[in-house]
Amino acid sequence: MPEKLKANYVDHICIAVNDVKKAEKDYVDAFGWEVAYRYVDEPEKIRVTGFMVGETAIELMEDFDGTGEVAKFIKHSGEGVMLISYNVDNCEESLELLKRNKVKMIDQKPRLFAEYKRNYAFIHPLATHGILTEIIDGKY
Amino acid sequence: MPEKLKANYVDHICIAVNDVKKAEKDYVDAFGWEVAYRYVDEPEKIRVTGFMVGETAIELMEDFDGTGEVAKFIKHSGEGVMLISYNVDNCEESLELLKRNKVKMIDQKPRLFAEYKRNYAFIHPLATHGILTEIIDGKY
Repeated sequence: MPEKLKANYVDHICIAVNDVKKAEKDYVDAFGWEVAYRYVDEPEKIRVTGFMVGETAIELMEDFDGTGEVAKFIKHSGEGVMLISYNVDNCEESLELLKRNKVKMIDQKPRLFAEYKRNYAFIHPLATHGILTEIIDGKY
Repeated sequence: MPEKLKANYVDHICIAVNDVKKAEKDYVDAFGWEVAYRYVDEPEKIRVTGFMVGETAIELMEDFDGTGEVAKFIKHSGEGVMLISYNVDNCEESLELLKRNKVKMIDQKPRLFAEYKRNYAFIHPLATHGILTEIIDGKY
């Protein structure tokens, strides 16, 4: 029997877009939502705009370099949802649980999202039918 | 200025899969989650398994006929997330608001999910950067 991963809620959903400025404007014009946050992640080569819907962040994500994972996703599938992230109480413990469940992980140890002191780890899309899946602890 | 759509939370996320039985088993084996519901929608030609993560349903969806929207999605993009649905207080009023915001809609009037007395409507993916987007009221 697999052990149960306690996932609190969908933490964020990442939408790969070609142009985050344009996508942000389109979402604001369509839904009238306020932008919750924007950030640039240089190592990951992404520009991000986040909106909050309940506890879930809807993140628009642009690859500003054209060579990162977001660009690869768009090349393969077009603009769309490239990641679902589940909030957990403790990323390290959840990661160990998933390993005991024999889940194919991208990360064997958590990564640190330093700015917010959040730990996160990626599950391989092969384990989740094509969706890059993340577990993350803490809050923005 | 666009009017603000009050979205309460992400109601459900639909993941298009080739074989819902296999996908269900893979998710149960990986995460140890209980199946919250299963249903077959004959007109839409889909078999669905839902898991709850907080207030959000994670729905695995198979096209059993091979000619519906789920099959088309997979043919184009492979298995992955094909829909995000936002919970609203009143679908009809939210739909009218979106129309006033000049959002390109698939539905000009709500559809009825009879079994649960829920109204829902689709926003065109062109308005949301490739993601089929839904508004829905009520609860499962």
